[in-house]
Amino acid sequence: MIQSVDRALRILTVLQGGHRLSLGEIAQRLDLPPSTVHGIVRTLLVHRMIVQEHDSGQYRLGPAVLTLGNVYLDTLELRSRVAPWAEDLARRTGFAVRTAVAMAEDVVVVHHEPRPDGSRQMPEVGIVIPAHASALGKAILAFDEEAAEGLLDGGILRSMTGETVTDARALGKQLDQVRLTGIAEEVEEAVLGECGLAAVLSDRLGGAVGAMGLVAPTSDWPVAAGVVASLRTAARSVSRELGATSWPPVGHAPRASEMGTRRRRPRPA
Amino acid sequence: MIQSVDRALRILTVLQGGHRLSLGEIAQRLDLPPSTVHGIVRTLLVHRMIVQEHDSGQYRLGPAVLTLGNVYLDTLELRSRVAPWAEDLARRTGFAVRTAVAMAEDVVVVHHEPRPDGSRQMPEVGIVIPAHASALGKAILAFDEEAAEGLLDGGILRSMTGETVTDARALGKQLDQVRLTGIAEEVEEAVLGECGLAAVLSDRLGGAVGAMGLVAPTSDWPVAAGVVASLRTAARSVSRELGATSWPPVGHAPRASEMGTRRRRPRPA
Repeated sequence: MIQSVDRALRILTVLQGGHRLSLGEIAQRLDLPPSTVHGIVRTLLVHRMIVQEHDSGQYRLGPAVLTLGNVYLDTLELRSRVAPWAEDLARRTGFAVRTAVAMAEDVVVVHHEPRPDGSRQMPEVGIVIPAHASALGKAILAFDEEAAEGLLDGGILRSMTGETVTDARALGKQLDQVRLTGIAEEVEEAVLGECGLAAVLSDRLGGAVGAMGLVAPTSDWPVAAGVVASLRTAARSVSRELGATSWPPVGHAPRASEMGTRRRRPRPA
Repeated sequence: MIQSVDRALRILTVLQGGHRLSLGEIAQRLDLPPSTVHGIVRTLLVHRMIVQEHDSGQYRLGPAVLTLGNVYLDTLELRSRVAPWAEDLARRTGFAVRTAVAMAEDVVVVHHEPRPDGSRQMPEVGIVIPAHASALGKAILAFDEEAAEGLLDGGILRSMTGETVTDARALGKQLDQVRLTGIAEEVEEAVLGECGLAAVLSDRLGGAVGAMGLVAPTSDWPVAAGVVASLRTAARSVSRELGATSWPPVGHAPRASEMGTRRRRPRPA
């Protein structure tokens, strides 16, 4: 870990949360001297990762992060594979379809097919949802041992609504079920009034590369059996295109990481 | 400038261009020892700015850049102000409407209102277009002395199509015209078959904060006078909402930068 690089990326994270901050505010949030922050901020400015507002002198994220995000999406094979299937699934079911990948204890939406009713809908690509509170996240966690381990070891999970499953053991039991079917559900656990059904997406390595899912208003919940079948077909088809030989993935083998293959640690008693 | 931070950001730029690269390839492109690159790469991995492909070992951009890009868009006042006007302009004219901001010698699209014909269109937010080859870029350059200076001092400009204006003096004359009207045009200069008309957007500081413009197929070019008037009305309205007291901006005063106010340098003879 290179300390100044780590600090630069933490400055970006602070601006992601705080939107517009002065040099002093950034320094305070990182518990660093303003002089240390200043050199890093100048470097981020030169690369347009951040910009300085001309009147207030405050800093915010800059256009270079947008172009990086755009290239990330363009190079994601999952996204190009999922697009035609998501469109078909939305048309068949009448629901919006989201596709997401894991990022630490969250999932990030990388593709969004709006509800096919012609209405204007907020774009959702790039939004972050806690993995344990979403069908998309649960579908991934069930087949991503490393990601699940971090959450399940923690004990109490963050509550988003009164319906969020906050007990790690209860979540673990849900994930056991998801492993059997490849399908996870969410009933007002992230947003009140919104339910979801998601299916894991796999590839040639046999693990979870992401999940695709339907977003249903509570008034349409539970969805019809035909809707579940359509989602399963779409997820299996996308996974096959990505090289998966079985779906749902078998055995959820841990994927090699850059740190070397990691084995399940014993849980604290 | 902090060297290791600069290197980290150059690694991101290299991956933005190269999509999937091994450690050795990154090191080669930056002309650095692989051991130096390795420490930075590990730090970028921890922050999910990049990910490593499990089978090939290659690196690509990671989901954290997508979430940063999303927050950048959410916090851009220009974007929220322009949205209803862009929708109205697309509906009135039948053309797609793009809004962009300057980034070094390019512009980055921050909002895209598709052609209102119900057809499926590629999303364009995050794409980068050379400023000198686009109506959007010319509308900004005419009122952003610093940005224009860099391009005009350079002499020969990069050619995108046979129609791109590559002579800096010819571009300078076009910009003089744009300054009178606030409106710039592009005739197959970035993409063959595509023309554009764009208007500068200003704010309370009186400079260019961006531009909004119409994208027209060459078969619809030149556009009707009513279309130009609608664009002018939209740009003036957005600028007023952003605090501009006149439109087009008067005098194109240089905006203070973090380096202190910069004055026009004499051109090399």
